Amino acid sequence: MEIVPYLALASALAGLGLAGYFFGLVKKESPGDERMVFLMTEIQNGAKAFLKQEYTWVSAFALVMLVLIAIVITPLASIAYLLGAVLSALAGYIGMTVATMANARTTEAAKQGPAKALPVAFRGGAVMGFAVAGLALAGLMLVYIVFVTIMEHEKAFEIVTAYGLGASTIALFSRVGGGIYTKAADVGADLVGKVEAGIPEDDPRNPATIADNVGDNVGDVAGMGADLFESYAGSIIAPISLVAFALALSADDLADNATSLLMFPMAIAFVGMIASIIGSFLVKGGDSTDSKALSKALHMGTNVAMAITIVATIGIAFWLFGGDDSFDAPIGLAISVIGGLIIGWALGKTAEYYTSDHFAPVKKIAAQTETGPATTILSGISAGMVSVAASVVLVLIGIGIAFWGGEMAFESIAGTSENAALTGGIYGIAVAAIGMLATTGVVVSVDAYGPIADNAGGIAEMAELDPSVREVTDALDSLGNTTAAIAKGFAVGSAALTALALFKSFELAILKERPGNPLSLDIGDVDVFIGLFLGAALPFLFAALTIDAVGRAAYEMIEEVRRQFREIPGLREGKPGVNPDSARCVAISTKASLKEMIIPGALAVVVPLVVGFIDVDTLGGLLAGSLVTGFALAIFMSNAGGAWDNAKKYIEAGAHGGKGSDNHKAAVVGDTVGDPFKDTSGPAMNILLKVMTIVSLVFASAFV
Amino acid sequence: MEIVPYLALASALAGLGLAGYFFGLVKKESPGDERMVFLMTEIQNGAKAFLKQEYTWVSAFALVMLVLIAIVITPLASIAYLLGAVLSALAGYIGMTVATMANARTTEAAKQGPAKALPVAFRGGAVMGFAVAGLALAGLMLVYIVFVTIMEHEKAFEIVTAYGLGASTIALFSRVGGGIYTKAADVGADLVGKVEAGIPEDDPRNPATIADNVGDNVGDVAGMGADLFESYAGSIIAPISLVAFALALSADDLADNATSLLMFPMAIAFVGMIASIIGSFLVKGGDSTDSKALSKALHMGTNVAMAITIVATIGIAFWLFGGDDSFDAPIGLAISVIGGLIIGWALGKTAEYYTSDHFAPVKKIAAQTETGPATTILSGISAGMVSVAASVVLVLIGIGIAFWGGEMAFESIAGTSENAALTGGIYGIAVAAIGMLATTGVVVSVDAYGPIADNAGGIAEMAELDPSVREVTDALDSLGNTTAAIAKGFAVGSAALTALALFKSFELAILKERPGNPLSLDIGDVDVFIGLFLGAALPFLFAALTIDAVGRAAYEMIEEVRRQFREIPGLREGKPGVNPDSARCVAISTKASLKEMIIPGALAVVVPLVVGFIDVDTLGGLLAGSLVTGFALAIFMSNAGGAWDNAKKYIEAGAHGGKGSDNHKAAVVGDTVGDPFKDTSGPAMNILLKVMTIVSLVFASAFV
Repeated sequence: MEIVPYLALASALAGLGLAGYFFGLVKKESPGDERMVFLMTEIQNGAKAFLKQEYTWVSAFALVMLVLIAIVITPLASIAYLLGAVLSALAGYIGMTVATMANARTTEAAKQGPAKALPVAFRGGAVMGFAVAGLALAGLMLVYIVFVTIMEHEKAFEIVTAYGLGASTIALFSRVGGGIYTKAADVGADLVGKVEAGIPEDDPRNPATIADNVGDNVGDVAGMGADLFESYAGSIIAPISLVAFALALSADDLADNATSLLMFPMAIAFVGMIASIIGSFLVKGGDSTDSKALSKALHMGTNVAMAITIVATIGIAFWLFGGDDSFDAPIGLAISVIGGLIIGWALGKTAEYYTSDHFAPVKKIAAQTETGPATTILSGISAGMVSVAASVVLVLIGIGIAFWGGEMAFESIAGTSENAALTGGIYGIAVAAIGMLATTGVVVSVDAYGPIADNAGGIAEMAELDPSVREVTDALDSLGNTTAAIAKGFAVGSAALTALALFKSFELAILKERPGNPLSLDIGDVDVFIGLFLGAALPFLFAALTIDAVGRAAYEMIEEVRRQFREIPGLREGKPGVNPDSARCVAISTKASLKEMIIPGALAVVVPLVVGFIDVDTLGGLLAGSLVTGFALAIFMSNAGGAWDNAKKYIEAGAHGGKGSDNHKAAVVGDTVGDPFKDTSGPAMNILLKVMTIVSLVFASAFV
Repeated sequence: MEIVPYLALASALAGLGLAGYFFGLVKKESPGDERMVFLMTEIQNGAKAFLKQEYTWVSAFALVMLVLIAIVITPLASIAYLLGAVLSALAGYIGMTVATMANARTTEAAKQGPAKALPVAFRGGAVMGFAVAGLALAGLMLVYIVFVTIMEHEKAFEIVTAYGLGASTIALFSRVGGGIYTKAADVGADLVGKVEAGIPEDDPRNPATIADNVGDNVGDVAGMGADLFESYAGSIIAPISLVAFALALSADDLADNATSLLMFPMAIAFVGMIASIIGSFLVKGGDSTDSKALSKALHMGTNVAMAITIVATIGIAFWLFGGDDSFDAPIGLAISVIGGLIIGWALGKTAEYYTSDHFAPVKKIAAQTETGPATTILSGISAGMVSVAASVVLVLIGIGIAFWGGEMAFESIAGTSENAALTGGIYGIAVAAIGMLATTGVVVSVDAYGPIADNAGGIAEMAELDPSVREVTDALDSLGNTTAAIAKGFAVGSAALTALALFKSFELAILKERPGNPLSLDIGDVDVFIGLFLGAALPFLFAALTIDAVGRAAYEMIEEVRRQFREIPGLREGKPGVNPDSARCVAISTKASLKEMIIPGALAVVVPLVVGFIDVDTLGGLLAGSLVTGFALAIFMSNAGGAWDNAKKYIEAGAHGGKGSDNHKAAVVGDTVGDPFKDTSGPAMNILLKVMTIVSLVFASAFV
């Protein structure tokens, strides 16, 4: 049984091998003519410059954490922290490098139709997907094998958790910094280019076009990659650390099954990785640009990978827990994992329902543009808020199912003691999150495909290729918008479940440090209640800070684009040989977004530390308050933003007067409001919740 | 000491007498020429028709509650419930009747300048203020005297609480229904009149103008009155019911001071009423339209009343609790009350900072109109969200101070048992809410003054009076916008404190019914956590429902106004003798808003009942989750809405291009988005929280 971490490590290395193989395939493709290579290189250099500077800034922050962790826990935990941070950064860097190589190659391949272009874009995404999943799992298994299996270090599980914190740090800053960058550039390019100068999107005359394309890569590729790296690692760490703390507190109940319980999450990660690798070979493009056929081709990989994971999970559960006469344990845990997977899928579908123009909510928003921007905004806000209720109900059903499955399993394993039942329930919730994320490799591949297709279209436009090429890339791009929904559902759902499981681990960690004096989490206690209240306010502050940051960064961008149109003769008219100073726009967006990233990023780490050292019960309340309110706010912002975006696209496709009409203008207002909602504040919120919980968990022993 | 309820009753009757006296003064004033009387009567009839139908609808709902209460508690509680509901409705009706009488009279008086007009408007408001405070207190004291003092009924305190629930029912539906009405009419009048037909606000040609003015009365007067009636009654009931439950559970600790603890809240209400009466005589207008002088005149009454209340509270505390050697008890409780008053004031100032055009946030929103409606919306959302953090921190400071004061007092009274200390802390929080609301009489007077001045301006415009009259009414009106901030701060702050105290009473009520088996409020328990999560989602759903309701009701209004402009010849051109069919607009707004009120209103009552009967621990989590998230959302929506409103007014006053500029158009978009935020969803949210808690409290015994 102890072979599981080695198996998982091997599967992770296989995933990395696959990433290398796909990298070779992508590289072999032609990047097109000189102009296309030039554009690709510009985007690539801009993105690399951003990442380099971002990582420099984050290093300073990580250094402080490193020292703190070394003092408070053990220097070995610092090493794990560093490994988590470095691997996450590396995954982002690799993914982004390949994405910025794959864009022009997809454009070039699009000249020969979708059957040729789809696999290029998907493989570009798959390098990212398997770099993320492979590095996250390999690093984590390495830490586990060295500190738990080999060294049997007394603080082994704190060290494992520190690995997660390293990943979380990078994820938080990548999401916030990348999110600010991408939206500042987007808003700057749109407001001055499209609205003021009246030139189309991705026009080479617009100085912010390159920055806008860079933004797609640093936000949607590198940011998303770091996010999923963190979510994936976190979902495996949560049940492991829960079991470790439970064992430390009452070893007797669980002793017989201790190893199985520790191995189960890693075993699921192992089968998920293998399933993802198999699935990724099944994505093949057809000859038609018909969206259904393309969608089927792209989804084939994910669907097969999930089916394999479901079947294999049942096998794993019986292998690890099938020794008893009763089959309650394997059945219960399989229910938890599969329940999580299904709920994650349902969450993605819910997000799709509220944000896709095939359904009523977006159609209603589009109809509301008839009465102007105000009603457009109101209907989007309302749709986003209703989607909160729907998503929360789903998550709660997921929590209920997973809890019930886990409880059933633990009653069979550890008897009917109340403590065992409760731990079992939370363990069920934790492994449900893995159910959602086991196939991260292929899910992220599909997700990273989106910005590559988007960029490919941008390059087609900027290189002034034949419109038929743009048609193909547009078909690929529109597909990317809907596929992202599934990944989002998994990311969001797993965030809630993982945060809840980590929260419980935090409770156990405090109890371990303070035997007989458990954390008070009674809402009726005034210190807990104060924490709860403060926790509910925090996500609002975080959202406001990130929205403002986008506003300020966009403002600097707008000023620069205006200046260039004013001062560079012939630019606006498109005189041959006159080029905008794109590099300056890239530099401005980089500097502004990194400056703006610091305060909201630091908030997530500083607040729990300060509150924890003052009163640890208040911290418990704060984490719970932030979790429930932050989750609701994140769903609201993501879905409202997505709905406005697609309402605009729906109108651009010809509904309600189409492009250029007053209705379209109203829809553009909605889309612009939604931009920081869905691409900055919303996605960063999920990481905020986990960072706060994991910081509390890592520093639990220092608080008491 | 037992004389306190009688004193409070007497002071309430004195307040009612004062309302009658002011009513006489207002009535004596001339309502102006025939045209003005016609307009006034139209508004009056529209408002009365709405209230009549609203109360009919609510009666059906109240009847169901009545039967439920009679079965579950005792028929006597139904009587108290009915009394609370009827008196609250009566206060709203009286206030609205006088407000719609005072509007034309203020216009007429404005012909002679502000010194004449200010007192008319204020006295009109004061009838409302003292009707609300007087009826609420008189009814409550009557219930207390009959059931507690005289009958010593075994369920006396449940009966007292039922009175509060009656008031809450009316408040909820008045806020929701009135809020939908006023915004549907406002948006309808603005969108078609101002934007499409290009005629100014309050133009007599606009068929929705009367409905818009009716809306000001049913929303801002009757709705606000019912809201304050409920808040005021609730703030007195909360500490009384807390003490009653604490006594029932462990009488020994508190026996010596039981009566004092029950009397203290009523005694503060008594001195607050007397102070309000004194203060109301000090409001006198000066000769200038200078806003500072007017503001000073209007605020004089409130400031004096508060100063008296503070001093008298200290006296009362020493009278009731000064018997011991230690002065910890009176000092501690005085700290709680005065702390509450100061925090309420600070909350009002915070709201003012974020919503008044004298400060940075609104100026920034106005500046953001330069880059269009999207940035206007984003900066308003951000300002509203930052104000959440500021307000929550203030409330938590208030909770901390009040808790500390109450704890100190109870340690002196009841010894150092942990239970006594905790109850003491919550008692401190409960009486802090009374500190905020003791001067309700004069505070509501100032608040109700606002819509009267607003309507007076409308009548001046519609009756086509000399522009100098409009100038005076505009000066009075702009004052009303800022004065409302204080009342809002009190209403919002007291909502949080009262809900928290009622929540604790709910906990004690469950313990009383289920001795030895207290409510589990441990966030770590999965059923509590599920409740917490569900509770966090509920306010989002409520906000979405109310926003949508306004949208749908406004849509019907827009269609009707368009129809009239299309079908009534000469209306748009202002042909003499051609009048719009205002009555039809009023009827449409009435019907639509009442229909839309039902679902969000019922939600507040049905959800806690359903959840409570399933799992009472989950209900505890749900109440806590709704309280913290709903509070945050309410502050966000109210302040963002207020900020947009005043950013628009700031531009209309000449900044950033002034009226008619593109910036102004962007500001109007912000204002329109903010309308349902600040006048429908936001204010109703506060009542939602209390209704849910008080429903749970009343039905606590039935749940277990």
